[in-house]
Amino acid sequence: MDKNLCAPTPPMGWNSWDCYGASVNEEQLLANARYMAENLKDYGWQYIVCDIQWSEPCADSQAYHPFTELCMDEYSRLIPAESRFPSSAGGRGFRPIADKIHALGLKFGIHIMRGIPRQAVHRNTPVKGTSATARQIAKTYSICPWNTDMYGVDCSLEGGQAYYDSLFELYASWGVDYVKVDDICASNFIKGRPYSAPDEVEAIRKAIDKCGRQMVLSLSPGPAVVEESFHLSQNANMWRITDDFWDRWDLLLDMFDRCKRWYTHVRPGCWPDCDMLPLGLMRLFDKNPDGTRGRYTEFTKAEQITMMSLWAVFRSPLMMGGDLCGNDDFTLSLLTNREILDINQFSTGGHPVVDEKNYKLWACTCKDGQTAVAVFNTGDEPVKSTISLSLLGIEKASARDLWAHEDMGVFSGTIPVSLDAHGSAVYKLTVS
Amino acid sequence: MDKNLCAPTPPMGWNSWDCYGASVNEEQLLANARYMAENLKDYGWQYIVCDIQWSEPCADSQAYHPFTELCMDEYSRLIPAESRFPSSAGGRGFRPIADKIHALGLKFGIHIMRGIPRQAVHRNTPVKGTSATARQIAKTYSICPWNTDMYGVDCSLEGGQAYYDSLFELYASWGVDYVKVDDICASNFIKGRPYSAPDEVEAIRKAIDKCGRQMVLSLSPGPAVVEESFHLSQNANMWRITDDFWDRWDLLLDMFDRCKRWYTHVRPGCWPDCDMLPLGLMRLFDKNPDGTRGRYTEFTKAEQITMMSLWAVFRSPLMMGGDLCGNDDFTLSLLTNREILDINQFSTGGHPVVDEKNYKLWACTCKDGQTAVAVFNTGDEPVKSTISLSLLGIEKASARDLWAHEDMGVFSGTIPVSLDAHGSAVYKLTVS
Amino acid sequence: MDKNLCAPTPPMGWNSWDCYGASVNEEQLLANARYMAENLKDYGWQYIVCDIQWSEPCADSQAYHPFTELCMDEYSRLIPAESRFPSSAGGRGFRPIADKIHALGLKFGIHIMRGIPRQAVHRNTPVKGTSATARQIAKTYSICPWNTDMYGVDCSLEGGQAYYDSLFELYASWGVDYVKVDDICASNFIKGRPYSAPDEVEAIRKAIDKCGRQMVLSLSPGPAVVEESFHLSQNANMWRITDDFWDRWDLLLDMFDRCKRWYTHVRPGCWPDCDMLPLGLMRLFDKNPDGTRGRYTEFTKAEQITMMSLWAVFRSPLMMGGDLCGNDDFTLSLLTNREILDINQFSTGGHPVVDEKNYKLWACTCKDGQTAVAVFNTGDEPVKSTISLSLLGIEKASARDLWAHEDMGVFSGTIPVSLDAHGSAVYKLTVS
Amino acid sequence: MDKNLCAPTPPMGWNSWDCYGASVNEEQLLANARYMAENLKDYGWQYIVCDIQWSEPCADSQAYHPFTELCMDEYSRLIPAESRFPSSAGGRGFRPIADKIHALGLKFGIHIMRGIPRQAVHRNTPVKGTSATARQIAKTYSICPWNTDMYGVDCSLEGGQAYYDSLFELYASWGVDYVKVDDICASNFIKGRPYSAPDEVEAIRKAIDKCGRQMVLSLSPGPAVVEESFHLSQNANMWRITDDFWDRWDLLLDMFDRCKRWYTHVRPGCWPDCDMLPLGLMRLFDKNPDGTRGRYTEFTKAEQITMMSLWAVFRSPLMMGGDLCGNDDFTLSLLTNREILDINQFSTGGHPVVDEKNYKLWACTCKDGQTAVAVFNTGDEPVKSTISLSLLGIEKASARDLWAHEDMGVFSGTIPVSLDAHGSAVYKLTVS
Repeated sequence: MDKNLCAPTPPMGWNSWDCYGASVNEEQLLANARYMAENLKDYGWQYIVCDIQWSEPCADSQAYHPFTELCMDEYSRLIPAESRFPSSAGGRGFRPIADKIHALGLKFGIHIMRGIPRQAVHRNTPVKGTSATARQIAKTYSICPWNTDMYGVDCSLEGGQAYYDSLFELYASWGVDYVKVDDICASNFIKGRPYSAPDEVEAIRKAIDKCGRQMVLSLSPGPAVVEESFHLSQNANMWRITDDFWDRWDLLLDMFDRCKRWYTHVRPGCWPDCDMLPLGLMRLFDKNPDGTRGRYTEFTKAEQITMMSLWAVFRSPLMMGGDLCGNDDFTLSLLTNREILDINQFSTGGHPVVDEKNYKLWACTCKDGQTAVAVFNTGDEPVKSTISLSLLGIEKASARDLWAHEDMGVFSGTIPVSLDAHGSAVYKLTVS
Repeated sequence: MDKNLCAPTPPMGWNSWDCYGASVNEEQLLANARYMAENLKDYGWQYIVCDIQWSEPCADSQAYHPFTELCMDEYSRLIPAESRFPSSAGGRGFRPIADKIHALGLKFGIHIMRGIPRQAVHRNTPVKGTSATARQIAKTYSICPWNTDMYGVDCSLEGGQAYYDSLFELYASWGVDYVKVDDICASNFIKGRPYSAPDEVEAIRKAIDKCGRQMVLSLSPGPAVVEESFHLSQNANMWRITDDFWDRWDLLLDMFDRCKRWYTHVRPGCWPDCDMLPLGLMRLFDKNPDGTRGRYTEFTKAEQITMMSLWAVFRSPLMMGGDLCGNDDFTLSLLTNREILDINQFSTGGHPVVDEKNYKLWACTCKDGQTAVAVFNTGDEPVKSTISLSLLGIEKASARDLWAHEDMGVFSGTIPVSLDAHGSAVYKLTVS
Repeated sequence: MDKNLCAPTPPMGWNSWDCYGASVNEEQLLANARYMAENLKDYGWQYIVCDIQWSEPCADSQAYHPFTELCMDEYSRLIPAESRFPSSAGGRGFRPIADKIHALGLKFGIHIMRGIPRQAVHRNTPVKGTSATARQIAKTYSICPWNTDMYGVDCSLEGGQAYYDSLFELYASWGVDYVKVDDICASNFIKGRPYSAPDEVEAIRKAIDKCGRQMVLSLSPGPAVVEESFHLSQNANMWRITDDFWDRWDLLLDMFDRCKRWYTHVRPGCWPDCDMLPLGLMRLFDKNPDGTRGRYTEFTKAEQITMMSLWAVFRSPLMMGGDLCGNDDFTLSLLTNREILDINQFSTGGHPVVDEKNYKLWACTCKDGQTAVAVFNTGDEPVKSTISLSLLGIEKASARDLWAHEDMGVFSGTIPVSLDAHGSAVYKLTVS
Repeated sequence: MDKNLCAPTPPMGWNSWDCYGASVNEEQLLANARYMAENLKDYGWQYIVCDIQWSEPCADSQAYHPFTELCMDEYSRLIPAESRFPSSAGGRGFRPIADKIHALGLKFGIHIMRGIPRQAVHRNTPVKGTSATARQIAKTYSICPWNTDMYGVDCSLEGGQAYYDSLFELYASWGVDYVKVDDICASNFIKGRPYSAPDEVEAIRKAIDKCGRQMVLSLSPGPAVVEESFHLSQNANMWRITDDFWDRWDLLLDMFDRCKRWYTHVRPGCWPDCDMLPLGLMRLFDKNPDGTRGRYTEFTKAEQITMMSLWAVFRSPLMMGGDLCGNDDFTLSLLTNREILDINQFSTGGHPVVDEKNYKLWACTCKDGQTAVAVFNTGDEPVKSTISLSLLGIEKASARDLWAHEDMGVFSGTIPVSLDAHGSAVYKLTVS
């Protein structure tokens, strides 16, 4: 089957990393799933993704514990830690959780690290479907620069492909719909080769294609290498174009350059990924001085709107990072602005038109064929500016403000626009 | 005016470099123009481009003469060497040649080096339209790594823009339709900055926009930097994605990778450029042991067809490099295959589908909405292979061989294909 | 104690790598020791060094077996594989072998890899003299680029130093006199940091200083970084200035440049190291088509003399790589030329005087204050040349050929010299 | 003649750059010469060096004027600007100034840029002693990254050597004793090749050897490449190990590392160079708000002593940078401390002994065979510390403070020392 068909529009969902780090548990996953089903599902949100380290019994924060013991089955495959995911007991894996999430009308995703557990390699445990052992298929010097769990896998060996096949057979049996594979899209560890494991990307693609279940394939971390865009688009559905994104203006400002480099590569089934949305209640893995946990996003409201506007017109996947249950009204409003989400899900041809230091303009074509335009003030002061319609090949149009949900009237030549510091506006222009 | 409008399809023409090097003269330009008017114009070929060093009186080969005296007007602007372009006498510049070429129904292009002549800087001659002198606007350490004629220009100074404005005012007065600017797209001289003169690119864009005449802007040499694709597409009409291309298989093989990196950036007015076509009678600047000059292309016929097929489906500009008057029947047939030229001029969405070591498949959409497919054997042996229609989302189609000009019948599932070593085929598929 | 005192002259000995690779055994070590005692000891040869992988039971060639099980004691310390070193049974380690070697009037050395065994880290075994465990002191991302046995050790932790202290306590108890530490002098794995473990170098220095026994400290592999010469000279006795050296002319030719970069750093206790001498019977780990094992050096006789001459005048450590028991007469003569060995052991101030493409001249001061000169023909043809005495500040001198053991007479101005292709001569000049 | 003989001890002198920049004139040179003769000559100071841009008539500050007209003779050789050096009128060049300096018992030095004037190349003027012209011997793409005066010279051409020969013939006729050649020791312009003109270094060496006059050859700028130490020592007398050094603590702190990398290369005739001493009245080319010019060094007194101590024990050349006539008593005392200057001029074997973050210890052997030790507090707070004599192989010695000129008594084991922030002490230890 064409791998592009399982992600015809940018995937929308929730991911556990920004709020729970390495320590998310069953209860937290299901609480977010219930919130999504009740409040967000109608707007297109559907994936609940369990991020890194779910096989580590003692994970308790954002940290990975070096060389720690992981839960593993008899075939060298990592399985959920029962201490954190009680329903996985008895070899049921993530199946019970996936079932509950599916019952809510949602889909279920997991994170994995590229490779085979080091503990399997050092114990030389079996690999399913092959006589090769873990030790025999491990790549000798392929390690992740920031996590000690795995060795890379030599996919030129029959046993290497068999290992990945066995992984996705298991995930299919659990009912997984989305897999975020880490340590595979960019790495600075091996000099001069940031995209260092293309063979493992291909092996994973083949394993998914064989496993009998559609799964979205998301590659991390970034920044992905633009020169490798064809290989990425042939094999994956999403790939990170940035290192981890957090609620800092410098990172958001930088994203304009990243989107400028990648916008020609956006198309159905192939989504350059700006990373999770650090919105609402985040970092519950951090303890505050007063004993409470977590904090709300440090983005200003203007910056939050700017982020959503850029992710919309660029058509990044939308993966909410904050704890959904902690959403305040403003956060919820960002996730349920149907007019903005429509740009993200259904527009085409999003591209930069103006790229000045403090003024950025992007345009795209809406599903009805009309033009939408996003204008950004990346300066540190509020500004009054204008949008020049001639840049869009338009003389006269009626405009609608998609954040204010207001029709603004008819304009010729220019549209005036007032923008907060780091603020933005998205207008739909209708030419009659 | 929108700069994209002057190159709505990939520019087609002839360039003097591959046959005459630095030494082309008036007679040679006009002979090629007459040939084009008679034999090629009806197929879309229109530009006659005079390449590098036309202001050097003693140029006699492919070589540049270091530090040599160039012909220059009173405003520090290079002008044609009268010894080689007699009609330029009396300050008429390229106007008489351009007039003759226009009279043939063709268009005229010139090559320039980025910057201001070093001889102007050392003599401190005036710059038109400003009180700044050549010495004052020269960038101190900006030189070309392979030609000693110029210093870069500091466009942050008012006099810098004035200089470029004065150049294009002159070129407009000559009737120039196309400018190939060199030493501006890629450079390895200044470490870590291969795209080292974006300010001069912008100044040239502004100068063209002001000069009152449409001109295609072509940037050299390559390889252009993919990360700079937005800046290139905002300012230029063509940019080289390769260093100089000659008739060697390794260079042609490499072009598949280059096209794979750039295909998403192809669109009207914005043409990543695979460089001139080294076909037919070339290198007339080289003397042979027997006293004759030049030689025919060293590409096999299969390789020539492969080159034309790739340039077609990728939609590279087509600039013939060989001496047109030396064309044999086969060479002429390559330049007048209307079905292949239609793919180059009017197809959309050309992209790689399969990218294996010895087998490449590209597809595009023809102007009538049907699919065309180009299949390449990049191996060193002839092969019998097939095209899998399912890769194109097609079950059954009639096929036409665009090189053989033959209808091949109707196929389901696969189309068999026999390919020479380094050979290719282009089929148009019609789904009824 | 001053670490320089244990290597007042360049160490001379035998190392198992060039003939036995990773698979040397007790019998082979002792056979070479007996040969040395009988034939070489009187000439200053004294170290018998057991190279890499002595804790791997199944080592059978030059190869390391990835992730294989190693012999280890209860404190995470590697111990000899009993299968290969039977006398080590019962926890006696290398003590019995060292005793036998000492009884022959020789000294005993071993090779170790920087770091702590990965198997200790993954099993989380104890470290002697500390409550920290193997897992706690391992550096997370510090691995060797060519051997999978170890993780680097974090010496900023108390447990890290304790681990190294426990290693050298053990080696002292075995009677070790010389330690070659590998994966510590140069590494290309972590970009931009070829000398990547200076903290472990310092920890090893401290551990030796505490252990109660003098040991020569030799660092590998190379090429060492010249900028780090001070740190190397403060901590080690020898450090490799080259990657592995074998019997190939290009490697020997390259050594002239390496010596030219390092000669100012040669002094008692501090010996830049040109690596083992690939002479005589080598590579017994390779099986020949006829069932025999090994081969003799592929250096010509002229090249062997050139190597010995350069190692002599530069004062490199001299570690014979071939199997001593396989020595033919010529090989033995190279190792027992007392006049040449005297240059290596007792000269001072060796330095290049002429460094032309095909002609190199080095000079040094002999222990009696006279000058010795080594002249090299690095060209591929025999030459007749001369040595200009004025380059040495000498007008007239009697000359003695130290390879021919012949007095040549008295010379003024120049000394004529005939050199084979890749050949050399060493003359002692006596000014009366 | 052996080039080392003209600089048997580190050269001591004055250089015009730190106080007069590019604009020094005859009067200023002679005023400094007279001061030196009266106040410093007896302490070993002897060179008066006219730094960069003496052929530029309009030089008025620290700046070079891009592409400006320079004074040049009929053989493409730069000559002094008469406007600044009136005695050079009538083709006498620097001869009259040199004569006056020699009459004071001092020596005279000049600065030159590597290469041939660009104005000579563009005018194609003759080169003395050859039929080649300036244009023919210029290296096409060899330019200085910070000064626009010259092109490099192709010394593989006979005319290239002839040009350099003609330069030094001229300088010998002027009576020049010292030449500082710039743009030749380090360059970052051509990637990967910081020591980019070794052929021009060799040509200059040959030209000096032929010119009939001894001249010290000093190479700039730095940092020189340690790997090239042999080539440098074969050809030059001094070479900069640092980029331009000014009165900033970070630069002085960094010099400890530079000296640590270079100390083994110090020997008579071969002096790694820490650059000028930014002491006393400096930067007279800068105008102050109150109309005065210049300022005193921004080093604290402790830092000035630290600098002099390091330059002394490392044996750097000593070239005073401040205007001698502006010396206050403290500055003069630094330049006339005979005990410290003796360390610089006559000690041997200076080397680092301790190299900790805030504590550095260097030792050397005095001309009488006793040990001197320099101790440095590179921390930002005053400290009380000790010198451990055992590090020097000494049990008991009497100590003399060479800055205080006081005998301190006899010490066993350790010597206590009190050091200011960034301060130092130099003690001579006498073992009886």
